[in-house]
Amino acid sequence: MASRPGEFEIISRCFAPLAGKAESFALTDDAAVWPVPSGRELVVTTDSIVAGVHFLTDDPPDLVAAKALGVNLSDLAAMGAVPEIYTLAAAWPEATDISWIERFAAGLKTEQERYAISLCGGDTVATPGPMTLTVTAMGTVEAGQALRRNGARSGDLIFVSGTIGDAALGLRCLKEGAGGLPAPLMDYLVERYRRPRARVSLGRRLQGLATSVIDISDGLVADMTHIVNQSSVAAAIDLDRIPLSDAARAMCSDSQDRIVDVLVGGDDYELLFTAPASAEPAIKQLAAELDVAIANIGSIRDHQSSGPNVLVTDKQGHEMTLPKAGYTHLSDQ
Amino acid sequence: MASRPGEFEIISRCFAPLAGKAESFALTDDAAVWPVPSGRELVVTTDSIVAGVHFLTDDPPDLVAAKALGVNLSDLAAMGAVPEIYTLAAAWPEATDISWIERFAAGLKTEQERYAISLCGGDTVATPGPMTLTVTAMGTVEAGQALRRNGARSGDLIFVSGTIGDAALGLRCLKEGAGGLPAPLMDYLVERYRRPRARVSLGRRLQGLATSVIDISDGLVADMTHIVNQSSVAAAIDLDRIPLSDAARAMCSDSQDRIVDVLVGGDDYELLFTAPASAEPAIKQLAAELDVAIANIGSIRDHQSSGPNVLVTDKQGHEMTLPKAGYTHLSDQ
Repeated sequence: MASRPGEFEIISRCFAPLAGKAESFALTDDAAVWPVPSGRELVVTTDSIVAGVHFLTDDPPDLVAAKALGVNLSDLAAMGAVPEIYTLAAAWPEATDISWIERFAAGLKTEQERYAISLCGGDTVATPGPMTLTVTAMGTVEAGQALRRNGARSGDLIFVSGTIGDAALGLRCLKEGAGGLPAPLMDYLVERYRRPRARVSLGRRLQGLATSVIDISDGLVADMTHIVNQSSVAAAIDLDRIPLSDAARAMCSDSQDRIVDVLVGGDDYELLFTAPASAEPAIKQLAAELDVAIANIGSIRDHQSSGPNVLVTDKQGHEMTLPKAGYTHLSDQ
Repeated sequence: MASRPGEFEIISRCFAPLAGKAESFALTDDAAVWPVPSGRELVVTTDSIVAGVHFLTDDPPDLVAAKALGVNLSDLAAMGAVPEIYTLAAAWPEATDISWIERFAAGLKTEQERYAISLCGGDTVATPGPMTLTVTAMGTVEAGQALRRNGARSGDLIFVSGTIGDAALGLRCLKEGAGGLPAPLMDYLVERYRRPRARVSLGRRLQGLATSVIDISDGLVADMTHIVNQSSVAAAIDLDRIPLSDAARAMCSDSQDRIVDVLVGGDDYELLFTAPASAEPAIKQLAAELDVAIANIGSIRDHQSSGPNVLVTDKQGHEMTLPKAGYTHLSDQ
């Protein structure tokens, strides 16, 4: 612990300046106090990221901060909530020096300004293990208006925001190199992996339009599975309608195996949602207004009592067989 | 990861049954939704505990659960808040088997019932490092009634609940053996270290009586220092008035060095608070009503611009010289 100042000095120097919206008492009291606005409900989520598992130990500190916050704000976005305040519990390895922590705090500040949120409390402890960062994010939603996973109905259309698969392909580039991919395309994919952008504005505006919403953290197929399981329906997705970035398209044209990364890779933090066909014009208008690409990738069907309830069909109309869906951690080989 | 079921099954089997008070959707949605009762403010705190640092790797799982919750609920108690809901972010080593997790969840259930709280969300991740458990606890307080650290005034009396030093002495027994201490006394001290009891009922009732409150987590002197720094006052504590358990008294009579553990050791999770002398009768009545020992251990004085602002005086009237105050982790030698 000789390598850096003590806990109280770190809090005072790096983190107290981030406290704001709540009565956080410059992080000097036992807890923060926050008056939840009248007529709104609290929305709460928590996620940890572990060095070597969810981020690379040599990732820039500001991007680690962006990821720690982004994965949580994405959950709030998927509930249609307005992010408000957050706590940070940081377990630092003893070798973490103060300049790393200062750059991490600067990264938090950038993200706080992007999302109009503020730190309201935290804890810093030493760990003999890898750095482990836990954010608990709190937002609010109009009473009764939270977006759920369980409202998809047969006949609804399935939509995704942005482009899918970039983060998983970016992670693959980091682990295996870019192959023949031009550097700017690789940089784009890696940035998508490292700096999730929570679709907060979109989530808020999906109230009254979407019947179910989830953020894509485990992977398109896995997260679609969460919706169909919670809604007791099935999903049919057209592979060709899944929106790909130029970089992802280049990697997939080079190797068809990469399309599996698109389908089962995690960490995109786009929103996956369902809505009745009658809502499609409003969704298109919303996409234009927010300047967010939104694509219809399939439709919801009746639940099947046997067989997979998420079907992905390729251009030739063949049902694709996918490996076990789910988020691929860095540590999985 | 072959040693136990996957994340979703662990959540469904062990943790979903703990979800209740908030609309936690059996932990199957992106976030929980909770309508904060009208007229009350949200109080938020977070604390991590790390195996080998804040608890012993062979501690019983139910006691690890009690500690993870207790350290957080103690912060809510020190704000005068009613605990309501909490999130749990657990980073498990891959060797953690399902039976450990089940016993941990059973421990959470016991504590939930004790404090009338419920789990509202969480995250489970694998870590190559030590187990790291982060709880974010949320409570409520009547608007404007949160208890702070910054209201102590010259002339106020200083009070503590319960007995002081037990946890630090219990930790010493675990690390160094009990010496000549009879087994039941050692067991008492170790239990006090392992199972913090948050003084929730007392904290709530200190509204209108106390001018400042903190929970003793860093140690009596360190936490008194937090109050005097935030309140711009000084504190004079009489060593002889610090309440000791029979077990602590036995250890201290055996070795005067142990009294230093009492003064600077952490983890007691009693409340340390100040109140005007006029409140003393009401505080005595409250102690009787709640069946909680409350002792007056000194008084608040004017802030001194130089020298220590927490003075501890022994029976002979000599000012004690203390080592650097603050919580002693397991890993500090």
